[in-house]
Amino acid sequence: MPAPRKEHLNLVPFVSVDNMMKLILSIGVEDAIEGIAAQIESDFKRWESFDKTPRLASHSKEGVIELMPTSDGETYGFKYVNGHPKNTKDGLQTVTAFGLLADVDTGYPALLTEMTILTALRTAATSALAAKYLAPKHARTMAMIGNGAQCEFQALAFKRICNIDTVRLFDIDPIATDKAVFNLQDSGLKVIRTNSHQECVSGADIITTCTADKQYATILTDNMVGTGQHINAIGGDCPGKTELHKDILLRSDIFVEYPPQTRIEGEIQQLDENHPVKELWHVITGQEQGRTSDSQITLFDSVGFAIEDFSALRYIYDVIKDTDFFENLDMLADPDEPRDLYGMVRRAAKQPSL
Amino acid sequence: MPAPRKEHLNLVPFVSVDNMMKLILSIGVEDAIEGIAAQIESDFKRWESFDKTPRLASHSKEGVIELMPTSDGETYGFKYVNGHPKNTKDGLQTVTAFGLLADVDTGYPALLTEMTILTALRTAATSALAAKYLAPKHARTMAMIGNGAQCEFQALAFKRICNIDTVRLFDIDPIATDKAVFNLQDSGLKVIRTNSHQECVSGADIITTCTADKQYATILTDNMVGTGQHINAIGGDCPGKTELHKDILLRSDIFVEYPPQTRIEGEIQQLDENHPVKELWHVITGQEQGRTSDSQITLFDSVGFAIEDFSALRYIYDVIKDTDFFENLDMLADPDEPRDLYGMVRRAAKQPSL
Repeated sequence: MPAPRKEHLNLVPFVSVDNMMKLILSIGVEDAIEGIAAQIESDFKRWESFDKTPRLASHSKEGVIELMPTSDGETYGFKYVNGHPKNTKDGLQTVTAFGLLADVDTGYPALLTEMTILTALRTAATSALAAKYLAPKHARTMAMIGNGAQCEFQALAFKRICNIDTVRLFDIDPIATDKAVFNLQDSGLKVIRTNSHQECVSGADIITTCTADKQYATILTDNMVGTGQHINAIGGDCPGKTELHKDILLRSDIFVEYPPQTRIEGEIQQLDENHPVKELWHVITGQEQGRTSDSQITLFDSVGFAIEDFSALRYIYDVIKDTDFFENLDMLADPDEPRDLYGMVRRAAKQPSL
Repeated sequence: MPAPRKEHLNLVPFVSVDNMMKLILSIGVEDAIEGIAAQIESDFKRWESFDKTPRLASHSKEGVIELMPTSDGETYGFKYVNGHPKNTKDGLQTVTAFGLLADVDTGYPALLTEMTILTALRTAATSALAAKYLAPKHARTMAMIGNGAQCEFQALAFKRICNIDTVRLFDIDPIATDKAVFNLQDSGLKVIRTNSHQECVSGADIITTCTADKQYATILTDNMVGTGQHINAIGGDCPGKTELHKDILLRSDIFVEYPPQTRIEGEIQQLDENHPVKELWHVITGQEQGRTSDSQITLFDSVGFAIEDFSALRYIYDVIKDTDFFENLDMLADPDEPRDLYGMVRRAAKQPSL
């Protein structure tokens, strides 16, 4: 009666935090970001082959837990991610995440992985990919407001993908800036610490805002943004959480990932729902123009989208092959005869532990 | 600079398939089902404290992959589950699943577990719980049409919770019935194999339909259902997939889990969208009557709902304490200083493997 047994069908490759760190270090952080950016660029070029849906968010007083699924018809992926700004007070991460890939034809999972580190990498990769199309070509200096967990990944992504050679750092908490200065000391970047938002953005070609408060904030006011700059706004990413003064938005050409989600979660929640925005994938495919003049202010209003996670998961799925940076999880019941689930359970009494 | 480090914050208890089997056997299958049913009953009594949303389904030609989240404001849970009827041809499970519990206040996962076996247990527990309120009190014989992976779990649940002493089995594939007869031989139930749908339901007080075809099917025709019977319809659980002739529905008092989901996925997708149905939780809390007469036909149009998975996850979370039936997964990045994610990655180069 047993059907032909395929080996290891019940086992799902799992990349732990420890293995993710070792994997990324073995590849090199900048190379990994560049690889993920290439996968995102490739997947954005076939945007229309993906199922797209706004993430499924469960909001609570202290934060949010989200499920972000997508599928290209062959592979299904989703990410579990939380956002709890107050976590840091208790020594916890603001954002933790894990993700999964599965085979659409069978529904069987093919990869489970930590995604806290991977989300940091894909967020930085997406920011730099957008800036490749939107920032002024001569850009060499980036201002970074908010020096938390994303900061160094952003700096390295912009160095590798956009040829940034100088980062200007500011955080309302100087300890965060201490950490970023220390971590970037041998990065090849010129690192300048500054003492105010205003000083930070001075002379910058690109401004990245990456702060974590869950509230309407005004990290950038209108007078701080000059003609020709590119703004990479990644901190405002849920309803009621923004970083930019509305007047900046009104002066900018705005680019977004997926409008139905960004209207709810991004900086543009401050604007009329019909305010014109361009989709990044339209720019990448050449259907729309990105930067068209030296005086234009471009704004990438980034909230993070499921396809970026899908791309990151696909990248990990590919690069772990032929490495030892994963373990196999006994996650799927796989009886010899598929309909004999109960018999499998009963027989477990007679088997030694796996 | 390190914040006070809580031990094991980054580790998530994981119940593998092997451990789930050993856990359930150590408890006893019927005791486990009864324990899960008690948790479901308790959670259905506080139905209004849960966030409810129809599951997020990704349909493809061969099947469906679903995410089923819910939260009671303190604990968040979700299940990943696929349904691929053609999988059995390739020696794969029709349904595989895993699930997660997380702490709402921090967003940190608290349990990851296989749920293929656990879903079978919770489905059986839910069916028997509904029948406790809806089936005739004198019911001792259940007909089971469809003898696949759910069959034995249903039989044992109805034995334990509803005092069923006889099961009548039929499946269009006699090999499935062979399996069920074999597995139930020492269950304490009188097991009768039958040769047709009609013979199977003869003399039964309860009829359970649990077939797997993804199509409109007519497992039960109107003439096969008599007055006073309780029908437990669990196979029809996605759009376009039903098991009962519409005329049976029109003669029955229909009970459902969550109407917005059942209207789309259940037997009642065949009916007008305003056709009256009662919610099981209203019966459990006494707000509505269940069975009111001996002649009434009651129908539990079950599609499976996220709160049942939540209850099952909560049960497992409770019972694994003080056992060895789980392992700890290094799933969450947990740097000493929450904002120093990059530093943690960098330092991994200098650390031995975990």
